[in-house]
This record gives sequence, structure tokens and C-alpha cells, in this order.
Amino acid sequence: MPAPVNAHMLALMETSPATPDATHDPRLRSWLPAANAAGCDFPIQNLPLGAFSRPGESATRIGVAIGDRVLDLRAARDAGLLHGPAADAATAPDLRPLMALGRPAATQLRAAVSALLREGAPRAEAAAAATLPMRDATMRLPCAIMNFTDFMISRDHTARLGARRDAANPLPPAFEHLPVAYHSRASSVRVSGEPVVRPHGQRRDADGGVSFGPCRNLDFELELAIWLAGENALGTPVPMASAPSRLFGYGLLNDWSARDIQFLEMAPLGPFLGKSLSTTVSPWIVTADAMLPFAAPAAPRPAGDLPVPPHLDSPANRESGALRIAMEVLLLTPALREAGAAPARLTATEFAGLYWTPAQLVAHHASNGCNLLPGDLLGSGTCSGPTDDSRACLAEILLGGPVTLPNGETRRFLEDGDEVIFRAKAHAPGAVPIGFGECRAAVAPAVEWPGA
Amino acid sequence: MPAPVNAHMLALMETSPATPDATHDPRLRSWLPAANAAGCDFPIQNLPLGAFSRPGESATRIGVAIGDRVLDLRAARDAGLLHGPAADAATAPDLRPLMALGRPAATQLRAAVSALLREGAPRAEAAAAATLPMRDATMRLPCAIMNFTDFMISRDHTARLGARRDAANPLPPAFEHLPVAYHSRASSVRVSGEPVVRPHGQRRDADGGVSFGPCRNLDFELELAIWLAGENALGTPVPMASAPSRLFGYGLLNDWSARDIQFLEMAPLGPFLGKSLSTTVSPWIVTADAMLPFAAPAAPRPAGDLPVPPHLDSPANRESGALRIAMEVLLLTPALREAGAAPARLTATEFAGLYWTPAQLVAHHASNGCNLLPGDLLGSGTCSGPTDDSRACLAEILLGGPVTLPNGETRRFLEDGDEVIFRAKAHAPGAVPIGFGECRAAVAPAVEWPGA
Repeated sequence: MPAPVNAHMLALMETSPATPDATHDPRLRSWLPAANAAGCDFPIQNLPLGAFSRPGESATRIGVAIGDRVLDLRAARDAGLLHGPAADAATAPDLRPLMALGRPAATQLRAAVSALLREGAPRAEAAAAATLPMRDATMRLPCAIMNFTDFMISRDHTARLGARRDAANPLPPAFEHLPVAYHSRASSVRVSGEPVVRPHGQRRDADGGVSFGPCRNLDFELELAIWLAGENALGTPVPMASAPSRLFGYGLLNDWSARDIQFLEMAPLGPFLGKSLSTTVSPWIVTADAMLPFAAPAAPRPAGDLPVPPHLDSPANRESGALRIAMEVLLLTPALREAGAAPARLTATEFAGLYWTPAQLVAHHASNGCNLLPGDLLGSGTCSGPTDDSRACLAEILLGGPVTLPNGETRRFLEDGDEVIFRAKAHAPGAVPIGFGECRAAVAPAVEWPGA
Repeated sequence: MPAPVNAHMLALMETSPATPDATHDPRLRSWLPAANAAGCDFPIQNLPLGAFSRPGESATRIGVAIGDRVLDLRAARDAGLLHGPAADAATAPDLRPLMALGRPAATQLRAAVSALLREGAPRAEAAAAATLPMRDATMRLPCAIMNFTDFMISRDHTARLGARRDAANPLPPAFEHLPVAYHSRASSVRVSGEPVVRPHGQRRDADGGVSFGPCRNLDFELELAIWLAGENALGTPVPMASAPSRLFGYGLLNDWSARDIQFLEMAPLGPFLGKSLSTTVSPWIVTADAMLPFAAPAAPRPAGDLPVPPHLDSPANRESGALRIAMEVLLLTPALREAGAAPARLTATEFAGLYWTPAQLVAHHASNGCNLLPGDLLGSGTCSGPTDDSRACLAEILLGGPVTLPNGETRRFLEDGDEVIFRAKAHAPGAVPIGFGECRAAVAPAVEWPGA
């Protein structure tokens, strides 16, 4: 009698590694000219998913970004252009139903959408009728987020800030053993474009005292957003072999940080109100499938560091667990905006060099049996690199003194009206680069304290 | 022209302090004899709310515990015994719609249910027909939990464990300034009765090394669960004056803690996998209204401690912000179970003596503008008191050496098959004591590591 198939065996059956296919062919072009323009974030090789509202509608729909337009998946399915369970799930008001189907459903949807949008597609005209200009789409959160976990996977970020505490031992004791993380706040995640209100709080003052009032040290953190697919039952770990099947896709994430609030509150239970004021995510999810050409070997560990623990290691991860993504931070101050000047670049960094890979974050997170749900959001942590210009938050940048902008303005922490903009591009030899769109938000002044 | 009413003014309008009414009258009796028995957890003065399934049904309903029976609120409304928006919301499959209506809706529902269940009620027979035996009700989570935050509000717990790090300064720097807290994991909260699987993890070993395997130091933490009503928009703080209106009710919570995993991972971002393995809550929510007779003055701070910061202080909180609840921990080992012996009591403690009140937790949590949602869950943190027998987790109890049980068994941390049981009773002079039911779960052995 054959043994019954259990959840673990099913998970292993999903693990044949995904490889690039016809949808990644660099020669592919769309019938939409804007999608073929050099430097476009959304060529036909990308096809990221997002939730949006049409003009005059409050309801949300699922769309695919292509060039300067959005393919409305509900309209495409209603027009008979898409079929099957993945297309049905994509008629929901957000991406959770599609995420719940697991990564293979997203793979099928990608193939169908790619066929629809490519040059010479037999039903190109009907497909075009199911699109709208991107500027007319109001982007929403990709899905209701049930859980948000934030990691800290840059060795440079961790060591740079840790050195202020202990220059000889700048890394926390667990750093080489496991991807250090904390549960963060799901309810306050907002989509790109929504202003961030400067929070009140009890602050650690420069003189070491404590006071209550609006945050004085508001910071950004440039992170990769990692969106999960599928679900493991509580008590059931996700081994490295099946962890990649839980990766739905990627975006950009600004983990706004009120440093003066955070540094008072965080011992010993970690950051709380210094982070839950708001978190901004970019609206488009670049799918794990779209990222296949940009896979890279996991970054080698510096000599003298501990080896990767066996339960967080796998041949596939060593070979292709990392992702080649060039990321940058731009700052648009009120003065730059008024002058019509371009935003100033503060940071340029690379995701592939970080200490842990997305699959390792999943495997570690579920190693205690924690159930990860479709639509759960992981933040990579600040993506700082080794060089001065790759410091990906102000707390690190300001270790070198105040920032001077091209117009002569200086900045320590963020001021009201400042707008922080993240952009990123996946890149690899021979592949058409694909972009993430923008993650941006401006700082709004603190509210008047109630009853004050 | 009158000023427009904004959210803050609305919040202030809600703040007339609730006071005991006819539903709290100690002379009230139910037509159900079991509800009038001395020592019953669920007399007519209690009327806690929970979600349950009827025999043979998987769908859930809202019920009220009365004596040894459950009043099925959907059945009661269908029978024309309850009317209005609160009764309509109580026909939902879980408590979130009622919680979303805010605390006044729960107050109205309580008055109607009390009238229905009291001795001499004109429609007592019809009401009885809408009940079922409690033993036939399968209890579920009260609602889908969007966010779970865990606090640390016992000065004794914090100081006892902190002294191991620094005997001269056992409290963390923020403790007297604010209720220290961390975001915890919402997806792994489970209702009383579901076993807790011993987690795998990277563990800090006794010799200081690190290894991977099943947790060796599994602990419980006795906490009060605090369930929230209503919602504040992101960016809008909740001042102390309106914080009580956000308290929906209370239960018991076991914040299972894998100490060896937690102590390796928690610097500097706080507990993560040491906590997210599972959290158990009791199924019945004792409403904030039911607790009115058990209000107590906020505990005075020890001489030498800082004063309460003004934004976390209010006359109402000083007078009646605390709650008189006697709480206990019992342990049923496999040997005790086999012998048919009673569980052994490990802890007896009192909630009223803790350092911060529930309203202060709400006001602090929202002070940075964090949006708190209906059904959000707050854990009080371990409710340890000053005496040896009020230590409310094993990490504290074991500072005095291994525990010896009445049958001669000894325990350090929890073993497979051990069942941990929490019980609690609200008490006050002249009031009928009301109970919380049980929060219990047994430890299941670790799973075989996948692929091992």
C-alpha cells in the first residue's frame, strides 16, 4: 500500500526549480510601443501585478503594468482573453486569492498575459481595449496584509549601527546564525503616495533625557518587500527545498523609522512605535517568475564568519538564491520641488550582496512551525552595502555628518514636506532590465496633540 | 457657523465614563439554576461573548455563556428575542462586526441579553430554546485577529528577569516612561484546547553554544488578553480620555515562550520565533461592561519611580483604571492525569497591582498615530506579582530551583504531554465574582524535521 501523501511530501513535489521560459526571452516585444522603450520599468518581460481603481470607481481590480498602461485582468477575462483558475482568482478585488493558489498559478497567468501582450498577438486589439493609461489608475495596496515581518539582512547596515554600541563586536550575537527579525505592524502599511504623518512619542533626547512630542529624528529605510504565496499549517516547517515556492514576488518598502522614539523603547523587546507609524510599499509586485533571469549565487560570507547552518542551506540557494537588483534612494525637498529641480540621490545599493536570501527568510520564519499566509509581507531590512554611497538610511548616512544636497541645502533627519523616493531595477547580463516602479511618500507635519 | 465635528471631537463625545447599571445588580438571578450556583464562572452578571460551532456544523456563531449553557445569539434574534444593530452584528460568524460598532453596541446587547436571561423574564421559555449545553459548543477564536501586540506591564516580572542581566539596574531604560511592548504574531493565535507543538529552532545552549533542534526550554506566560473595539484612522492618536471606549473586553492568554530560542534571537530586535510558535487564548470575552464593578484605582508607583507621563494619565485612570482579577496557573502532567489527580497549582497572582492599566496600553499604542482595529489583541505581558507564589512563568519560578509537584514529580521547563491551565476570577467587595473560563493547552512532541 502506498504511503499517504502528506503536506510535507506535497511541498517537496513543488520544488522542481523554476527556470526562465519564453516569457523571459529578451527578443520579446509588445504591440504597445511604450513597453519597448529603452529604460522602461515595465517591458513585456516584467508583467508585475497590482491592485488599482479605475477612474470614478472605489472598488479595486487586479492589473498588470505594461509600458505606460495597465491591463485590467477582470476586463480581459470578461472579454474572453484569459481563462482558468488563475484568471478567475485575478478577478478578485485584491491579490490574496491568487497568492493563495500558490506560485504555479501566477506562472500560468504570466504565460497567458505575455501571449496576449506580445507583438503579433492575434487578439491584440481586444487586449488593448482591456487596458487603461497608468496615470488614470489609482494604485491600492496589493492585498490585505495579515502579517508583516521585518528582517535585518545587511551585514554592513547592522555592523555600521552596531559599532556605535560596541566597536569591537558590532554584530548582534545571532547575526551569523540566523536572519534576525521582528514582527512589525500590519495595519499601518500604506501604498506609495500616501503621506506619512510625523508621529508623536516619548523621545530619547540628545542630552540623554526623555521628552514627549513630535519625532525629531524621522528616517527612511530602503528595503525590498517580499510577498508570500501559499500557506503552511501551524506546526509545519517549510524546508529550504520548498521555500522558493512560497515567494510570490517583490516590491520596494520604506520602513519609516522614528529614531528618537525607537532608541528609547527598543530594549529589550525591540522596535515598536518607532516603526508602526507607517510603512510604505510600492504598488506593483514584480513576480518571482519575472525575477528568474536575475537570480545570482548567494553572496559568499566574509572569511571568519560562521558557515550557513544546514537547515538554511541548499544547493539551489547557493547557486541562485540571491537577486540582482540595483536600488536607489532620492530625496525631493520642498526647495528642490519649488525650483523644479530633480530629486537628489542619497543612496545607490545592490540587493545581491546581502547576507541572507529571500528563501532563507521563509525557511527561518517557518522553522518553529509558524504558519505563513498568502499575502504576508516580509521586509528585507535596510539594504545598505559596504560603500559610503550605499548607506540606505539616514542613521547610517549621518555617521559622516549632515547631508549636503546639490542646491546647497543640508539635512540631518527628514523635515516636513520632504519626499522620499525609492527606485530599483533588476539587471543581469543578457537580460532585459525590469523595474519596480516607485515607492514614494512625503512627510506631513505632526497633528496637534488631542486636548493640548 | 459651528465648527465641523472631527474624529477627535467624536472620540471625546464617547468618553462619559460608563458606570454599573441594572445588569450588574448582585441580586439578579437567572431562570437557569446553574447560573446562580456559587462559584459559577458565568452568572447573569457576566454574560461573556464567544464564537462557537453547534454540533455537526463547521460554521461559527456568536454566543453568550450563561451557567452551563450557551445562548445562541443568531437563534435568539431569529426567534425575535433580540433586535437592533448590535443584535444584527451578532449574527455574523465572528465578533469583529460587533467590535467594529464600538463599545456602546456591546453595552446595548448586554442589556437586552440580561433582560432575556433573568428570573421572571416574560420570554424565558423561548430564550431557553435558543440555548445549548456548553459541552456541545465547540469554541472557536472570537474573531479573525488582524494585529497582536504583547506588552510587559509587571514590574516584578521585568525586574526579576532583568536582574539576571544587571542586578543593580534590573528595569529596562523605558520601563517607567511607557508600557514596553512588541508586535507579536497574529496568525499563530489559537483558541484554548488546541495542542502546542514543541518548536524547532536555533537554541542558546546551557554552555553558551548554539545548536538546532527541538526547543528544550518551553515555558508559559500567564497574561490578560485585551480585545479592542472601534477604530482610529492612521495618524490619529487616542488620548486617555477616549481610550476606555476602545476596550471591548478581556480574556486569558498563554504567551508560549521557547526560552532557548528567544534568548539567542532577541538582541536587538526583540522576541520572534521564540513566541510565534503559538499563542493560546480563552474563548470567552468578558466584556469591559461586565468588568465595571471590578474597577480599581491604578496601582501606586513605588517611591522613587518616575511619575506617570501626562499623556498617559487621567483622573478616571487614577480612580478606576485597574481591574481586580485573581489569576492562577495549574499544571496537569501525564502522571497526574493518569492518576486521576487534580492539576497542581503553580501560580496565584492579581492583575490590579500591575504597573500600567489597559487604557494606558491603548493610549500609548496609538500615541504615534498607529491605527488600532476592531478585534486587535493586546497581551498584558506576564502577570507576576511581588511574592514567590505569584511568579507567572517558569523562567521566574525556576530562579528558585526546580518545581516539585504534589506527587513528587519535578519540573524545570515543560515536557511533552504537560497541560497548562489558566483560570481567573474578577472580584470586588459587594459584587458577584465573575469568571473567565479556562485557557488551556497541552504540549505536543516536536515534528520530525522535514527531510531529516
